[in-house]
Amino acid sequence: MSIIVLGTVALDTVKTPSGRRKQMLGGSAVHFAMTARLFTSVNLVAIVGSDFPKKYIDFLHQKGIVLTSLIKEKGNTFKWEGQYQGDLNTALTLNTELGVLSAFRPVITEEQRTIKHIFLANVDPDIQRHLLQHMHSPQLVGLDSMNFWIKHKRKALLRLLRKVHIYVANDQEARSLSGESNLIKAARYLYSRGPKMVLVKKGEHGVLFFSNKFIFALPAYPTDTVIDPTGAGDTFAGGFMGYLSKAKRINPANISKALSLATVAASFNVEDFGVNRTCRLKLGDLEKRLVKFRKYILF
Amino acid sequence: MSIIVLGTVALDTVKTPSGRRKQMLGGSAVHFAMTARLFTSVNLVAIVGSDFPKKYIDFLHQKGIVLTSLIKEKGNTFKWEGQYQGDLNTALTLNTELGVLSAFRPVITEEQRTIKHIFLANVDPDIQRHLLQHMHSPQLVGLDSMNFWIKHKRKALLRLLRKVHIYVANDQEARSLSGESNLIKAARYLYSRGPKMVLVKKGEHGVLFFSNKFIFALPAYPTDTVIDPTGAGDTFAGGFMGYLSKAKRINPANISKALSLATVAASFNVEDFGVNRTCRLKLGDLEKRLVKFRKYILF
Repeated sequence: MSIIVLGTVALDTVKTPSGRRKQMLGGSAVHFAMTARLFTSVNLVAIVGSDFPKKYIDFLHQKGIVLTSLIKEKGNTFKWEGQYQGDLNTALTLNTELGVLSAFRPVITEEQRTIKHIFLANVDPDIQRHLLQHMHSPQLVGLDSMNFWIKHKRKALLRLLRKVHIYVANDQEARSLSGESNLIKAARYLYSRGPKMVLVKKGEHGVLFFSNKFIFALPAYPTDTVIDPTGAGDTFAGGFMGYLSKAKRINPANISKALSLATVAASFNVEDFGVNRTCRLKLGDLEKRLVKFRKYILF
Repeated sequence: MSIIVLGTVALDTVKTPSGRRKQMLGGSAVHFAMTARLFTSVNLVAIVGSDFPKKYIDFLHQKGIVLTSLIKEKGNTFKWEGQYQGDLNTALTLNTELGVLSAFRPVITEEQRTIKHIFLANVDPDIQRHLLQHMHSPQLVGLDSMNFWIKHKRKALLRLLRKVHIYVANDQEARSLSGESNLIKAARYLYSRGPKMVLVKKGEHGVLFFSNKFIFALPAYPTDTVIDPTGAGDTFAGGFMGYLSKAKRINPANISKALSLATVAASFNVEDFGVNRTCRLKLGDLEKRLVKFRKYILF
């Protein structure tokens, strides 16, 4: 079973207590794909500008990502510049340059339209809906967003929620979209708006999973190696959707396995800048760390 | 095996989104005792003023707390007034009135000096050390503190750390005392200062346990009923020390059971103002909720 992921391909400039990197390969779709590829074939739907280095295209291709619908337009690639301080939980955005992203309309092939598993990573909700409308038979649809869209396109986002099965949000976003400060109440509200599964990512504090039948709470994998948390949330989503996409059934056992693999994947992501660590990741690395993780949280 | 707990007995005035309560029974030693009593006999070492209501003395007595070393002095009982907003994770202190606490020197009986399990709840580190020096044969000593003492009596606190087995801190305190922003690094530093077990309480995000041999991470019990979080940390400590005090051996199995019981106890504490819920708690309630908790975090 393939996955199609709509999102950003970006050039990230990041400063953390461990150092600074300029115009690294980044973006929500890239981080998602770098983990999801371990489980399934990943089709990337995104846009880059004419300044996008060919070496990154080659790199993505070499990682097995299907790039048929990666559009290249005249102009600049989407650029994000951010900084982390202290506990590295919150990114301070220093600069955002939309470039070609501002005029992005996804175009996919007829074959891709038949893909049943879809992840709508963080872009304008109108673009997310646009892609979703073009899919022939969506079976498992995940959605991520961000505070900017919650504030400026709240209605469009809530409309879109009705069409998706999985909503992935960080704690701030869950609180902001629901208007509830208690995370369980927030998750319940979001659930009531459509998605059968709500995932609230809490960074170093792990994840809360909410559905009608069960709740899961998982701490993050305890690690003292946090170099660059950029993309940890998308890595998490990639692990979660990737595993579920491969699993035959969506049941509590598979969901909790997906959550734990996603947690472990995110712990690898933060260990190096950009996709430096996740691009070398193998399924065996995840399974191995999962064994350690189990020990940490058993009682 | 008995426990002796040194800490505050307070009159708390608390305002939360659920309402306001005036001069409730509170304080670190009281919240600790209210859970620890489920496992063992608890000796309370604290001070109150002449304004302390007799009904509260009767109440503590009725709960089986040993009050031999609860001193009553002329003057006012320690009073704390605080407010919670939004996600209820952080208390805003509106007023603190030390009263008789400012001249408190614990006095215990010869029999109490032989008690081997000791919890030094949050008071001046000099008072904590004073009590500890009077104990004949401390076997398991737990310590809690707060940012005020970390700032103003850092050296005394670090000296005291060498004498204790368990250090309980919230995430802010752990970061502030260690100077490390990563919680694993912070816990490792605190461990290096003496205590064989370091517990970092993260409120709604659960707890991190650090020792030389193993790390445990547990999310909080997922609950949408948060009325008043005051004393949740002391309730947690009471459950943890209480269970370990009763357990024959300190091993990974008992530590993780203690952590999970403590987590569940804290989830009861926040469900009502002050000790309104924990005072009615039975061991069976903890065990019952533990079964649900296990389901939430298994994978």
